[in-house]
Parts: sequence; structure tokens; C-alpha cells
Amino acid sequence: MTGRVTLVGAGPGDAGLLTLRGLRALQEADVIVADRLGARAVLEQLAAEGVALGAEVVDVGKLPGHHRVPQEGINALLVQEALAGRNVVRLKGGDPYVLGRGREEQLHCEAAGVPVVVVPGVTSAVSVPAAAGIPVTHRGVADSFSVISAHDQLSQVPGGPDHTVVLLMGVNTLGHSAHVLAAGERSDDCPVAIVEDGYGERQRVTIGTLATIAHLAAARQVRSPAVVIVGDVVRLAAAGSSTQDVGALTPANDWTDALLTLSTI
Amino acid sequence: MTGRVTLVGAGPGDAGLLTLRGLRALQEADVIVADRLGARAVLEQLAAEGVALGAEVVDVGKLPGHHRVPQEGINALLVQEALAGRNVVRLKGGDPYVLGRGREEQLHCEAAGVPVVVVPGVTSAVSVPAAAGIPVTHRGVADSFSVISAHDQLSQVPGGPDHTVVLLMGVNTLGHSAHVLAAGERSDDCPVAIVEDGYGERQRVTIGTLATIAHLAAARQVRSPAVVIVGDVVRLAAAGSSTQDVGALTPANDWTDALLTLSTI
Repeated sequence: MTGRVTLVGAGPGDAGLLTLRGLRALQEADVIVADRLGARAVLEQLAAEGVALGAEVVDVGKLPGHHRVPQEGINALLVQEALAGRNVVRLKGGDPYVLGRGREEQLHCEAAGVPVVVVPGVTSAVSVPAAAGIPVTHRGVADSFSVISAHDQLSQVPGGPDHTVVLLMGVNTLGHSAHVLAAGERSDDCPVAIVEDGYGERQRVTIGTLATIAHLAAARQVRSPAVVIVGDVVRLAAAGSSTQDVGALTPANDWTDALLTLSTI
Repeated sequence: MTGRVTLVGAGPGDAGLLTLRGLRALQEADVIVADRLGARAVLEQLAAEGVALGAEVVDVGKLPGHHRVPQEGINALLVQEALAGRNVVRLKGGDPYVLGRGREEQLHCEAAGVPVVVVPGVTSAVSVPAAAGIPVTHRGVADSFSVISAHDQLSQVPGGPDHTVVLLMGVNTLGHSAHVLAAGERSDDCPVAIVEDGYGERQRVTIGTLATIAHLAAARQVRSPAVVIVGDVVRLAAAGSSTQDVGALTPANDWTDALLTLSTI
């Protein structure tokens, strides 16, 4: 009998931001095929809190420089495991449909006769800025936002600091991106924030302007993973964000008691 | 002793998409101040599944035409309850920082000396399209997207069907929006989908083009709440979406057993 594949959004890397349905899928899985960003951190936190998962975990997103399973290999693995009758969870950082190739993996599985269910997650594009107190929208400041991964569309995003731009995977090309954005309607002093390792141990916020951010990032040795936010909403960042680390929104394990509480139902 | 306020993103209106930390906050609350969209549906589903919440629920988002608490009233209520020593959860549909005035309520509370914690949620801007099988990004189709609520920025979003545009609260002005978008780089036959009542009992998908969508919406009597998606990603919608209702991703109560399973920890 054919198994199934459940695409689960793990959220930004904090197990407290996993969804109830996502947790259920992990508990029922025979195999968990996990990405590096977000997904592995959530599995480690669940294990640390004593949430037992019986599944075999296959890590397909090793660190850069190490072996990493190519997309075709991931697709083939999902199909192979499901056709062998196993219940597979494909655990992806953030949301499966935001730059996660989720629909692509889904269509591949379905073409092979494997049923797929999708469980949306908390996207890093919104939640990582939130970890620094930065809202992607704010009445009177910004009522729309763009999430961009490719540089060829940067020159086309709505001008003005009242439209928030969120750059994913943008640290390595930050200087160029800032230059392009400043060449449009935005002025050199349009605020920019970089949130590194959102919800992780290394979480750190760097705040500057389109003119200064590349220099600041170099001076502070900013590294991936990081989310870049451009626009006036950056002025709403939690106090002190620009010069020091900010903690996670709440202690990392504050959701554990919820699970224990549930045992009394 | 001063209480506190926790801003919780309820997600798109399916309790299975509530986060673990969000559930924990609801369980600990003395008072829950709930919006209409998303939030109330989640509370009702939790109650139906026997998840006991001891909190008083204050509904500040009655249906249009009925009494609705103005923003100033909500701000005052949050502060008043917290200063009275109560543990307040402000439950908002989707994510608190996506067009939810979350940061605004937070800053108001903090100015009054009330500590605030934010728990991000699954945003409707991504998850409601997903309910119809529509990914906001897809390799080779779209690698960026904009989320828009105001019409004055519509003419500025990146041109071409390879940039996805998500319109929130856009049903009533759909004809005008389609006209503006078609006047840019997009052609008249750029695909458009409307997902009404995502994850709700009335969930329904209507698919057309920039040229036809306003007529289709009128003929099918499309109503709010609905999310509009513009771009080639609409072609990836689940089969049959355009002519019939599509069900939720999974049965509404499939997460319940996860809670029961947890009781064995």
C-alpha cells in the first residue's frame, strides 16, 4: 500500500512556532526528510523537551561545503519512501510555499501517484522581522510589503519607504541590493535592518540605512541565514536592536508546559 | 501587580494551524480579546474539540453592521485589563504584524507600562492561497511576491506574471485592481484566483484572468473574506479549483489526536 507525503512548514526555527497539525504529522511519521534551516532546529528542540518522535530522520540539507542532497535526489527519496508504504514528512523551514520548492516536490510526488498534504507554517519573511520588533506593515507607515529573493526584480518594487521590502537570502549581495534600492525613489537614509539567525542562539540585529548598511554588515561580519528589511517600519524596531543582541520573543521552552497541560484534557 | 498582554496570531482560521506557543498563551489567559476573522473560528474549534480555556472571551470584531469596538477602545481595554493584573491574550487572525495593527497595540500597551509578548502566526497571505494549491513562489514561475492592501501601490508592483501579487481585503475593489494591474506589464490573460473563506466551511476558489475575474466574481457572488492572487502561480492551483469548491487541506480535526498523543509523554 502506498504511503503518503506531508509537507510541513517548520516555521523560523523555534519549536514553539510549529503548528499543532505540524506536530501531529511529525508524531505520525515513519520518516522525516529535513532541511537545514529551521527544520533541524525544531527537531532538536522537540527532542530536548522530551517529545518523542519515532521517525527515522534524513537530513538533506547539510551545511555548505558538506554533502547536500540535490533536489532530484530529494524528490526521488520522497517518492521511494512513500511507494514503500511509509508515512513521510518533508519538514521545511518557514512555510513550504515561500521559496521552499514545496509545490515542486508536491507535484513530483503526485505525478508518481503519491498523495500529498500541505501544512502551512510561520514564514520567516514575516516572523524573523517580528523577532526584532519590526512589523512588515504598520498603519500610517507601510500598508504593503514585498518578499524578494532575486535581484532582477529589486529595481521594480514599489518606491518609497512606505512599502516594506523583505530580502531573503540577501546578505551576500547586500551592497548591490542597497545600491539598486537607493537608485529608485528611496533616499540614501531609508532605514535597513538585518536580522541574523532569527530565533536562534546567534540572533542579532543590525540597523543602518541604504547608504551605510553594507559597511555596517561587513564591520559586524554579518552572516547567513539572515533576513533584510528595508523601509520606515525599521524605525519601529525594539529599542536597542541596533547595537546589541536581542533575545527571542520568549524563553525557548515556554511552550512545553502547554503540552503538559494538554495531558489533563 | 500588572498583568501582561500576549499578541497571538491565530492563523487563517483553522485551529490545526495555531502554533504551540499560541495554544499555550490561550490556556494561560484570564481574558482573550478576539478579532472576527480567524480568531473566533479557532476558539470555536478548540471548544468543539474539548480543549478547555478558562478565559473570559471579549469579541471586539462583530460582523459588519453590528457593533464593533473601535481601535481606541481595544487599546484601552488591553491596558485596563493588564493593569488590573490580568493575563490578556489579544488573538488576531493571521499574523499580528501583517495588516493587523499588532505593533500599534503593542506600542500603546508598552507606553502604559504593560509588558507585551508577540507570538507570530501563519499569515493568510500565504496560507489561504496554499489552501487552493497555489504557491506564492515556484521555481521558474515566480521567485518573489507582494502583499498589498492599498490600491495606491498597485500600479507600482513589479510587472510581469512572474511576480505574484496577493491582494488582501480586495474583493470590493477587484474590478479596479484588475484594470490597474492589466495597464502595467501584465497582459489581460494573466491568471487571477480568488479564495473565499479560506479554511472555512464556505471555502471556494474562483479562477479567471485580469480581463474576466471581475465578471466571474460578480456572477459567482464572491464575498469577503477572500484573498486574491495574481500571477502565473495561479496555473499551479489544485485541479478543479475553478469550477467547484475545494475542501480544506485535511479534515478539520486531524490535529486533535496529536494533543491526546502528547498526554502519553
